Amino acid sequence: MQRIALTVEFDGYGFCGWQRQKNGPSIQEALETALAVIDSSPVACMAAGRTDAGVHGEAMLAHADVRRERYERSPMAYVHGVNQLLPEQIRVLGTRAVQADFHARFDCRERAYRYQIWNRRTAPAIERWRHWWMPRPLDIADMNKAAALLLGKHDFSSFRAAGCQAASAQRELRQLRVTQSACCVCIDVRADAFLYHMVRNLVGSLVRVGVGKWPVERIQGLLEARDRSQCAETAPAHGLYFTNAIYDVFESRQIISRGDA
Amino acid sequence: MQRIALTVEFDGYGFCGWQRQKNGPSIQEALETALAVIDSSPVACMAAGRTDAGVHGEAMLAHADVRRERYERSPMAYVHGVNQLLPEQIRVLGTRAVQADFHARFDCRERAYRYQIWNRRTAPAIERWRHWWMPRPLDIADMNKAAALLLGKHDFSSFRAAGCQAASAQRELRQLRVTQSACCVCIDVRADAFLYHMVRNLVGSLVRVGVGKWPVERIQGLLEARDRSQCAETAPAHGLYFTNAIYDVFESRQIISRGDA
Repeated sequence: MQRIALTVEFDGYGFCGWQRQKNGPSIQEALETALAVIDSSPVACMAAGRTDAGVHGEAMLAHADVRRERYERSPMAYVHGVNQLLPEQIRVLGTRAVQADFHARFDCRERAYRYQIWNRRTAPAIERWRHWWMPRPLDIADMNKAAALLLGKHDFSSFRAAGCQAASAQRELRQLRVTQSACCVCIDVRADAFLYHMVRNLVGSLVRVGVGKWPVERIQGLLEARDRSQCAETAPAHGLYFTNAIYDVFESRQIISRGDA
Repeated sequence: MQRIALTVEFDGYGFCGWQRQKNGPSIQEALETALAVIDSSPVACMAAGRTDAGVHGEAMLAHADVRRERYERSPMAYVHGVNQLLPEQIRVLGTRAVQADFHARFDCRERAYRYQIWNRRTAPAIERWRHWWMPRPLDIADMNKAAALLLGKHDFSSFRAAGCQAASAQRELRQLRVTQSACCVCIDVRADAFLYHMVRNLVGSLVRVGVGKWPVERIQGLLEARDRSQCAETAPAHGLYFTNAIYDVFESRQIISRGDA
């Protein structure tokens, strides 16, 4: 067998999230089913992160053990074969061979997400499934001031969902930056790892600041309170994109096949 | 009555195009139906251009005569009222009062479109309805050389579809520019007006150059031939966006409500 890392792009609309569930189609199930057909035997996949229902993936990283001879004959043909078996909402962008003990989740040093907001008086007609619509004007400078208060190692209990199973709520937030281009407001966020609903709760709270409902300083108090009930509403899933998984020797964004191999 | 100009955004997927047709839902029909409900009487709309089935609009301009008192009470409330009656794929972004003889089509001095190509070995999972997928690498420099040969006033018979009803095939192409950002290739095009399928035929021919099937010079010969049968295949509709309609005193892109009025 050969362990491989796969970078996967997916439109999360209509899926119950990355992880296999009983209540609906998942990205993991679709990918494992396609790999099993190619390999003629069951294949298990592990990913860098579990995304919620409706969240999109631009470059999710998964690992799987596959038949070495089939993969090595032509990695690109292998990718094309898997893609032909996947629904059109999911595509493997590329693969690379990794060591037998590589683990997509445990070896991941940093995850990156982007949250997209459509900030305009009227709802988006074209981008309606790709952004959270926010009709009230956002103060980007204030949002960035609030974001700066959250950077670093903290207990993020105020931003974790009730169902979160992580043993510790301590995470290191390494980037939280708000930028605007025309009516699109993007929030880029990076951390060693994230708690359940943490990105969407961070976004919901920054938006409260952005629309002027909360003063910037309230974010400091919220962080220190370690109390989810003081947090803002969770931002909707369809504006969230998993954008990168960073490992010691590569990033998921880099595993995108460009050549003719 | 008050004649108003409306800037309209629409996702063309599932529509038979701008113009009212017997064979499917159109943007014009949806807009006229919504305006008629607000005005309690039939309303007719004319647009700057007729888009094909599946083509998107970022800022199409239409004009209509509406009841002055209802519109003037609050133009923004009028817009919100219309939007609540429209399907979610169509939104009026803003309006402005114009003179009674203003005409969205005949007064338009210039139209702009953008064509989006996803240039990557693997198909787009997230952007699959918004771009034409082109797996072979595109030579952007060659495409721009070919584009430069088409600028100016010419007879564009080679790029018009068989069903085109325009009396003359002469048009002035004022911009045709190819740019690349990551795997997204954009073709921006501006002209006084366009023939039927002209943008999609221009794109199809530039892509032939980009993948190396045609030498740059062939575009010159194609233009001079005035013969549609020598042209490349028509690029698919779902990569095309109507982006601007330019008039003497305003552009459709400028009529986007931002205030609270």
